Amino acid sequence: MTGNTAPHQSHNTIPTPTVAPPDILRCAYMELVVTDLARSRDFYVNVLDLVVTEEDDHAVYLRSMEEFIHHNLVLRQGEQAAVAAFSYRVRSPEELDRAVEFYQELGCRVERRTEGFTKGIGYSVRVQDPLGFPYEFFYDVQHVDRLAWRYDLYTPGSLVRLDHFNQVTPDVPKAVKYMEDLGFRVTEDIQDEAGTTYAAWMRRKPTVHDTAMTGGDGPRMHHVAFATHEKHKILAICDKLGALRMSDRIERGPGRHGVSNAFYLDLRDPDGHRVEIYTQDYYTWDPDNPVVTWDVRDNQRRDWWGNPVVPSWYTEASTVLNLDGNPFPLVSRTDDSEMEVTIGADGSSYTRPEEGQDSMPEWKQGEYKLGHQL
Amino acid sequence: MTGNTAPHQSHNTIPTPTVAPPDILRCAYMELVVTDLARSRDFYVNVLDLVVTEEDDHAVYLRSMEEFIHHNLVLRQGEQAAVAAFSYRVRSPEELDRAVEFYQELGCRVERRTEGFTKGIGYSVRVQDPLGFPYEFFYDVQHVDRLAWRYDLYTPGSLVRLDHFNQVTPDVPKAVKYMEDLGFRVTEDIQDEAGTTYAAWMRRKPTVHDTAMTGGDGPRMHHVAFATHEKHKILAICDKLGALRMSDRIERGPGRHGVSNAFYLDLRDPDGHRVEIYTQDYYTWDPDNPVVTWDVRDNQRRDWWGNPVVPSWYTEASTVLNLDGNPFPLVSRTDDSEMEVTIGADGSSYTRPEEGQDSMPEWKQGEYKLGHQL
Amino acid sequence: MTGNTAPHQSHNTIPTPTVAPPDILRCAYMELVVTDLARSRDFYVNVLDLVVTEEDDHAVYLRSMEEFIHHNLVLRQGEQAAVAAFSYRVRSPEELDRAVEFYQELGCRVERRTEGFTKGIGYSVRVQDPLGFPYEFFYDVQHVDRLAWRYDLYTPGSLVRLDHFNQVTPDVPKAVKYMEDLGFRVTEDIQDEAGTTYAAWMRRKPTVHDTAMTGGDGPRMHHVAFATHEKHKILAICDKLGALRMSDRIERGPGRHGVSNAFYLDLRDPDGHRVEIYTQDYYTWDPDNPVVTWDVRDNQRRDWWGNPVVPSWYTEASTVLNLDGNPFPLVSRTDDSEMEVTIGADGSSYTRPEEGQDSMPEWKQGEYKLGHQL
Amino acid sequence: MTGNTAPHQSHNTIPTPTVAPPDILRCAYMELVVTDLARSRDFYVNVLDLVVTEEDDHAVYLRSMEEFIHHNLVLRQGEQAAVAAFSYRVRSPEELDRAVEFYQELGCRVERRTEGFTKGIGYSVRVQDPLGFPYEFFYDVQHVDRLAWRYDLYTPGSLVRLDHFNQVTPDVPKAVKYMEDLGFRVTEDIQDEAGTTYAAWMRRKPTVHDTAMTGGDGPRMHHVAFATHEKHKILAICDKLGALRMSDRIERGPGRHGVSNAFYLDLRDPDGHRVEIYTQDYYTWDPDNPVVTWDVRDNQRRDWWGNPVVPSWYTEASTVLNLDGNPFPLVSRTDDSEMEVTIGADGSSYTRPEEGQDSMPEWKQGEYKLGHQL
Repeated sequence: MTGNTAPHQSHNTIPTPTVAPPDILRCAYMELVVTDLARSRDFYVNVLDLVVTEEDDHAVYLRSMEEFIHHNLVLRQGEQAAVAAFSYRVRSPEELDRAVEFYQELGCRVERRTEGFTKGIGYSVRVQDPLGFPYEFFYDVQHVDRLAWRYDLYTPGSLVRLDHFNQVTPDVPKAVKYMEDLGFRVTEDIQDEAGTTYAAWMRRKPTVHDTAMTGGDGPRMHHVAFATHEKHKILAICDKLGALRMSDRIERGPGRHGVSNAFYLDLRDPDGHRVEIYTQDYYTWDPDNPVVTWDVRDNQRRDWWGNPVVPSWYTEASTVLNLDGNPFPLVSRTDDSEMEVTIGADGSSYTRPEEGQDSMPEWKQGEYKLGHQL
Repeated sequence: MTGNTAPHQSHNTIPTPTVAPPDILRCAYMELVVTDLARSRDFYVNVLDLVVTEEDDHAVYLRSMEEFIHHNLVLRQGEQAAVAAFSYRVRSPEELDRAVEFYQELGCRVERRTEGFTKGIGYSVRVQDPLGFPYEFFYDVQHVDRLAWRYDLYTPGSLVRLDHFNQVTPDVPKAVKYMEDLGFRVTEDIQDEAGTTYAAWMRRKPTVHDTAMTGGDGPRMHHVAFATHEKHKILAICDKLGALRMSDRIERGPGRHGVSNAFYLDLRDPDGHRVEIYTQDYYTWDPDNPVVTWDVRDNQRRDWWGNPVVPSWYTEASTVLNLDGNPFPLVSRTDDSEMEVTIGADGSSYTRPEEGQDSMPEWKQGEYKLGHQL
Repeated sequence: MTGNTAPHQSHNTIPTPTVAPPDILRCAYMELVVTDLARSRDFYVNVLDLVVTEEDDHAVYLRSMEEFIHHNLVLRQGEQAAVAAFSYRVRSPEELDRAVEFYQELGCRVERRTEGFTKGIGYSVRVQDPLGFPYEFFYDVQHVDRLAWRYDLYTPGSLVRLDHFNQVTPDVPKAVKYMEDLGFRVTEDIQDEAGTTYAAWMRRKPTVHDTAMTGGDGPRMHHVAFATHEKHKILAICDKLGALRMSDRIERGPGRHGVSNAFYLDLRDPDGHRVEIYTQDYYTWDPDNPVVTWDVRDNQRRDWWGNPVVPSWYTEASTVLNLDGNPFPLVSRTDDSEMEVTIGADGSSYTRPEEGQDSMPEWKQGEYKLGHQL
Repeated sequence: MTGNTAPHQSHNTIPTPTVAPPDILRCAYMELVVTDLARSRDFYVNVLDLVVTEEDDHAVYLRSMEEFIHHNLVLRQGEQAAVAAFSYRVRSPEELDRAVEFYQELGCRVERRTEGFTKGIGYSVRVQDPLGFPYEFFYDVQHVDRLAWRYDLYTPGSLVRLDHFNQVTPDVPKAVKYMEDLGFRVTEDIQDEAGTTYAAWMRRKPTVHDTAMTGGDGPRMHHVAFATHEKHKILAICDKLGALRMSDRIERGPGRHGVSNAFYLDLRDPDGHRVEIYTQDYYTWDPDNPVVTWDVRDNQRRDWWGNPVVPSWYTEASTVLNLDGNPFPLVSRTDDSEMEVTIGADGSSYTRPEEGQDSMPEWKQGEYKLGHQL
């Protein structure tokens, strides 16, 4: 299950630029377009307890408790729910020149803005990347109070850090190769015996990922994830959603991921944007950090406890915008679908590899075999 | 949602004996018949970490970490998986005479055994109760070490106390009335607007229940439940089951119950006997403790987070034995089925009462509406 | 260490009344006199997050999250910090007649008030008990919302239940004998080989205690204790006190008690009243529940981790009032002092009995042997 | 309290080499000399539950649950308790040449060993650094199973990662300047108004530290720290030590550090080597990560809850060996002592700066002012 190999390669490869990629520190923030700013603000501020750094009639800038930069999430009022930017922080202003060169060599559209694209951020570079995603890079940012010690402000479910993004793209090996060129490293992936790659997790900071590539029609945004300190904080968010009669915001979990070993909960915001709450993956910074490859038919890969993944989790994701603010057209996945091979009509999974499909929980056959029934 | 009323009464009532019932302290142990003693021992001892007080070729006597009586669970080798006894401890030996009189007046078969029916227990009374369940009462018991302070023996998922039984019976109001005559008090129940009662929770000790009556074909045993100290211990049991590639033992949860407010996990043992792990309900000892009545269509009644109940949880339960050790014949439920009214073809549930079925999580429609598909 | 014996008897015994004692359910609330109502309200409401049921210019009525009666704590403005009542709930109104008879036979002053002594409570009986404590008994009470399911209102350190009182009295065996006459049972105590009893824990509800008797000059109130759901909630209270720069409110802990096996934290309110936060003791309702007797020289009896008890914890306690509202005069303890025999100049303790004083942590000698230095 | 400045500079500076320092990934393991290998093995394996990778008559090689390299701790039998190596992993074998050049330019003794100094490690470089510490650098290492998913092996207090070292050295600014030359960055420090630096925390990996420099007679090893997943795991270690009647191994805590914001516990192993258990500090990888400077008189800097630091914690530390295996001679600290300025006869601390010494907890005056009494 463990090795040092990246996912199988695609036949449809993005060329490696001759210039070095920018030195990326970490995923830093996401810009979400929401259709009802007040309603979304209520969800992120009053339900999920993110901290408002700044707001106006058009946008709300939010951060987590341990963050010292201006924001980890921007909610911007718009007509159609979408993602306007996946933003990464780089090590220095000079790295932005590298970003420009890197993407220009790839033939991508590149926009530079000295004053930044959002409040609190300085000189920034936005690109439409080869997969169609709106990526942003910046270094200059307004510092704000790191609230780590402000235990008078913590709530039972406080979010402390932006942890990662998750992107939907049709050709995962193609995406991985491009991201490795951009300086990311694979930590875990899901494959099958025939060599199809279904998803891959990639990091810059020494956690399991800064972003993951999930196979599906894309480009789309699968989720944005925030970290908590302990597992009980994730349970507290569920309890609070129940008390607010908002339990229908819970799409999947809570549970333990197989991939990443983290404890998770997947929510849907008022526009359907998926937000993951996440805690306790592991250190990955050594160059020879063992890559973990999961068999797509291993029923514990997505949920270590074998609880079924709901179909919407596989099929629904957020539109991403191009640099003009219009939806980027989708490209369909042609490789096998993880949902179809595991829970579809011809799908199969196992709890114990040696027993195959017979080792699937009998009490959940209905849920796992939904494909038969839809 | 809160009042002081018991469930609606049945038309088919068991008469109230003229004698006082025995003064019952608490549910004390269950005797399970298992078909492969070694396999079941492995599950309860090596997976769930119950403590072996004593064992021989035919039976294993197990207790939880804070228990000081000989056992909370007996595994006895037999040909057919079943439940041989639901055993309660009474306040004194004299209470056993009251038990005899109480059940004799009800016309029930009563067996007295000076040396007890299981090791470690003294003079005991077993009855086939009016609902068909094999109930036992005892006072004399061998004391063993309470391991509460033995933190060198605790494991990440240690079970500290037997918490409750859960019984399946066709006519819940009938069962409740009889149990109230036996000295139990209702703490919570599930009803609908038409007056059907689907389940009721009843206590002697000051927790939410010592046993619950769940509507269905009966008599059958729905589950036996052990308590942990904190929620993370229940998550640790799930994690361990994953590591042992036994995640298919997880039938439902973990989650937060609406009823009882406790955090729970439902497992199936190697014979399919259901074992619940449970923590953090509330104090109920005041005579005017508010009874909580849940609407059967409230999607948060069984799981506060709105996660669906798998059909097997409603339909499967363990056979119970009569005093000769033979399976007790089933009586079918004629009242509405909770599964049918909530997830069946004509079923409906809500997250927010004012929005009705529209407030159900769209991403889980498939799971909730399985009735359409089976 | 475990047996079924009560503490050694005193030579100075309060006679057992010929009438039966009232059937007490549980400790229900304490009435505290505070010298600055606004300041105390801030501590209990904004720091400890108790819920205000009702308040006026003279008093604040507070309850915990799982309570359904009007209050668990009354803060009443007064000139001198003190305790006006230790209040217990009885099983029915009729039990109040028993209380009157019980205390009248003991020659105690008894006050009856149909409308109750505090808001929200009906007919009540207050007595000056034989030890000098102002005890109250009531049944009628205004019901309020049990907030158990209101997870939108929980905070990281929410208190869910009043757990127990702790009283200081000079002659512990005398106090225990009287409390046993009142229907309480001893669950644990601290003794020495010579037969001196230093403290005893006594229950009505099936936890380790509803009140404890701590040896010292009395009558005084040692502490009032509230329960949380899990240990991390107690740590969250510490963290919050740090963030508020109120860490000097922490007198002792957090830690694990030896006695009771509970996790604890002892705070001092703005008037110096001691408030304990407490979680996870064990079930004690069986009549033959093993009594645990601890050796006074066992260094883990008060703190299972061997952390030293600060001298103030032994020496400071709150004044109690007589039924006229005046301080009750103190009687000095003549038996040995727990502090002197353990940390005083001639004191000794052990971590491992077989090694005696040599098994005390070398790094804490200074703290343990403060008696040499004061 | 927050800025971007390093500690004040020393007048006694180690020159900055002209060559680049090795690219260090993280603290990787410590080699401890212990006087009774069986006794130390019992402490680390049976009490702290570290995993034995390999062992022989002379040494035991231990790792934590999430580690994939051969070991995080070596226990080696010897005549005098000491520390033989603080070992760091570098990014590639080539970095070892940089290490050699770096230290040779500093005039330090450098030892290269192709086969490594301990089992499981390949080509390694050991140096006697300018402060007198035996530092090791390596890249090649035997991979072993990362047990992160092996929840069947976890115990209530499982250690998952080596987190940091802590070193005692007389001149903290001198040490910091040298460590910055070696590529470390300061994240937090303790200073006073007069410009004395008492301690500094420095990182390579993006946590608060890989090592800290604590002012005192040195070179000595203050502690080695392992991380757990959650705070309850640290409490479980305390509980287990109590059950094993080894509570005297607890020197300080558990508590919340002010510096680092982590939850901690400090133990002493059978030879007196200090082992810290640690969880939940924060992400520090951004180049402009705010440095937190604490006032030495802030009573919450070392323990956020204001609990006193025992004198032994300031005064006792482990001997370190030179490359010949002999104790390195101590150099005395000439700057002010943190213990003296805070708890000594003329010391002072505050809970609230504006109130000064008056804001210290009255109930702990004895403990804080031990200096008066010793």
